[in-house]
Amino acid sequence: MEVAMKKVIVVGMGFGGVRVVNGLSGKGLDVTVLDRRNFHLFQPLLYQVATAMIDQDSVAYSIRAILRKRKDVRFLMSSVQSIDLTNKRVLTIDGPLDYDYLVLAAGSVTNFFGLDSVQQHAFDLKQLNDAVSLRNHILSVYERAAKETDTKVREALMTFVVVGGGPTGVEFAGSLSELTHHVLTKDFPELHTEKSRIIMLEAMDRLLAPFPPELQQYTLHKLQKMGVEVRLNTAVVGATPDSVQLKDGSEIASHTLFWAAGVKAAPLADALPVEKTRGGRVPVEAELSLKDHPEVFVIGDMAYREQDGVALPGVAQVAMQGGDYVAKAIIARERGQQIAPFRYFNKGSMAVIGRHSAVANTLGGLKLKGFLAWLAWLGLHLFYLIGFRNRVVTLLNWAYEYFRYNRQVRLITSEPPLQEGPPVQENAPPDEAETAEKLRLVG
Amino acid sequence: MEVAMKKVIVVGMGFGGVRVVNGLSGKGLDVTVLDRRNFHLFQPLLYQVATAMIDQDSVAYSIRAILRKRKDVRFLMSSVQSIDLTNKRVLTIDGPLDYDYLVLAAGSVTNFFGLDSVQQHAFDLKQLNDAVSLRNHILSVYERAAKETDTKVREALMTFVVVGGGPTGVEFAGSLSELTHHVLTKDFPELHTEKSRIIMLEAMDRLLAPFPPELQQYTLHKLQKMGVEVRLNTAVVGATPDSVQLKDGSEIASHTLFWAAGVKAAPLADALPVEKTRGGRVPVEAELSLKDHPEVFVIGDMAYREQDGVALPGVAQVAMQGGDYVAKAIIARERGQQIAPFRYFNKGSMAVIGRHSAVANTLGGLKLKGFLAWLAWLGLHLFYLIGFRNRVVTLLNWAYEYFRYNRQVRLITSEPPLQEGPPVQENAPPDEAETAEKLRLVG
Repeated sequence: MEVAMKKVIVVGMGFGGVRVVNGLSGKGLDVTVLDRRNFHLFQPLLYQVATAMIDQDSVAYSIRAILRKRKDVRFLMSSVQSIDLTNKRVLTIDGPLDYDYLVLAAGSVTNFFGLDSVQQHAFDLKQLNDAVSLRNHILSVYERAAKETDTKVREALMTFVVVGGGPTGVEFAGSLSELTHHVLTKDFPELHTEKSRIIMLEAMDRLLAPFPPELQQYTLHKLQKMGVEVRLNTAVVGATPDSVQLKDGSEIASHTLFWAAGVKAAPLADALPVEKTRGGRVPVEAELSLKDHPEVFVIGDMAYREQDGVALPGVAQVAMQGGDYVAKAIIARERGQQIAPFRYFNKGSMAVIGRHSAVANTLGGLKLKGFLAWLAWLGLHLFYLIGFRNRVVTLLNWAYEYFRYNRQVRLITSEPPLQEGPPVQENAPPDEAETAEKLRLVG
Repeated sequence: MEVAMKKVIVVGMGFGGVRVVNGLSGKGLDVTVLDRRNFHLFQPLLYQVATAMIDQDSVAYSIRAILRKRKDVRFLMSSVQSIDLTNKRVLTIDGPLDYDYLVLAAGSVTNFFGLDSVQQHAFDLKQLNDAVSLRNHILSVYERAAKETDTKVREALMTFVVVGGGPTGVEFAGSLSELTHHVLTKDFPELHTEKSRIIMLEAMDRLLAPFPPELQQYTLHKLQKMGVEVRLNTAVVGATPDSVQLKDGSEIASHTLFWAAGVKAAPLADALPVEKTRGGRVPVEAELSLKDHPEVFVIGDMAYREQDGVALPGVAQVAMQGGDYVAKAIIARERGQQIAPFRYFNKGSMAVIGRHSAVANTLGGLKLKGFLAWLAWLGLHLFYLIGFRNRVVTLLNWAYEYFRYNRQVRLITSEPPLQEGPPVQENAPPDEAETAEKLRLVG
């Protein structure tokens, strides 16, 4: 009689989930992958989608394409509703699934720290559609500014507030600065685009907190040189559609608030009946598993684990190494073998600031900045982008932008509905003289 | 004293509008371009976006990028509410604009011929987001089919109905057939994808009505060989989310109805206080202008004009030649010169059916079919795609698909919202035994 294969469920196909599946496939296990989306997302480049540099399809890759050669892995596009640890069962919106091993790798969502008005009005960058919405918005406020005669409103439309001086905030601010100064200036000759402002707000006293002071300083000066107004020790407490409220009681008139001030574990963590730690993360043991349930693993941004007294950071490297480790741990258990506790090996971190400018803090303490760091960033990101075609298309976009100071993808894809039937004015007709002045176009 | 420049307003930056602006720029006129979108759309390739062959950004090109070198042309992203022919004034949602010459080139929308249930449930392909929605839907019904155990429902999810045997219907059906047979078959090993059906319904007794019978026959046989069930003399009268009702009283179980059975003039035509003709089109005189208002031109799909007793077709060539002509007509008038009436020169038409297979009816009566016609199609479309980068990226996608029988862009980008907070079940919990059976995954 055939022995039933052990069932492994992997929830989430981000950087961690992909590694788990790669490690488990072909090992005599029955692997089911769950994801709400049908694609893997290369999150570190979302800011480039938001700033019209690369197209959205360059950062997304079909999960079924990734799994195509893995005949022992099944994909289910679904969402998890709850997890029954006792009966080893996951309840999805499509019904229950039993498991012998469960790997949770659903990543993180933006943390607005309970600031409801900010959550309501701010843009963030966690999902593909976030990036497209932000791109549409940035281009739309420029189109609105081009039609606006009230100087104050026009300047508020051209003012962008970036909250959070971590890698995402720095990379977005740098890329946005280049978009406005090199591209939109030429696209909107009717606007005084030098009035465009990018204001970066950071609650701490420095940018890129985990980087060495030398690279923090370089980043600050480079951003300032690119026209970004950096305000350290500045906290945001609220927002409206056209303003950002600061803790000191002052206000910035702006129609665009980009929030990159923190993340918390994906809501999937709430489906686990265990106590969470800071940011809703799930504390895990030495094997990245739950305390009383060694068959349940949590990796990446969802997990909380300290190493040498410091919490592991929420970066792709931790998720990827965690994924590799969990696959090995499951295989070892099946063979009745022991495996050493998980140890994160920090290969270094980097952030790109602009054209030929980046900072990199590599393993062994080597610090790079400027052009060399930027080249390293370029090579690494091309290497990690899944799929030949994505690499080529993305490289082509980068080259196009680099040599022509251009942005190809500056499309507003949130199309207004077509008016059907005879035009109806919902409000009273505008005062023609007033709107004529407003448009500066009637002769 | 300086003489005020004559004001020209061009509404719509499709194939016609772009040509008008190209012809008028640099001629001492004050040109304002209005469009609801900020991009020019290469509509003939929308079906390839819908079938995951090329990315959406390959068929759209920033209007401000097109206009960048034309300092005498202004762009206004806006919509027209009404037109005051007497006072030569256009009322936009952003206020009124005066003109000396007005060119209306807003194209067409899908004609559902008053079939409300069809309009509600069918997909069409006129706007960029239509193509993305259709792509998301095609991939989503497959994902749903992969989770469905009811054979009838599963087969209905994998059945696609294409209404209209014109070029759009033929090209979409051919491309969809290749997507399902070469790509989705491999992506969904758990599905019997041979059960997937594509049914083409055409109310007339032949496909590609304006083509010579020889090419119509070739197209019919080629589609049938590709697995498309073609039903001629078949009309649709209604639809629900999971069925299509035919005139003979029968019904097809299908979750996807694609409608390419006709177009009508864009709603902008309703803003013109003149009598319309078939399909809401605006009758124009020999100079493509309104009868009593020679300063108002209508071109492309919005206009109705007969030549040698036959109505000009709603194709890109007519719009482009009309645009060139109107620019010349306006310049001639300004110089007090006469211009000969507009004459459309038919350079030929083509439709691609599948890999190395197309039909082309060229000027001089030369008929091409098969590989040679396909090569001609490839060259022409690359030539007409605006912008170097779009050409390269599109070619790359085509080459990738051609050599690897693959589709890169098979992403479902309509993401479900993240559940926030503890999971809440809106309905009663599903019967576990039933859903377990439904999923075929619980052991």
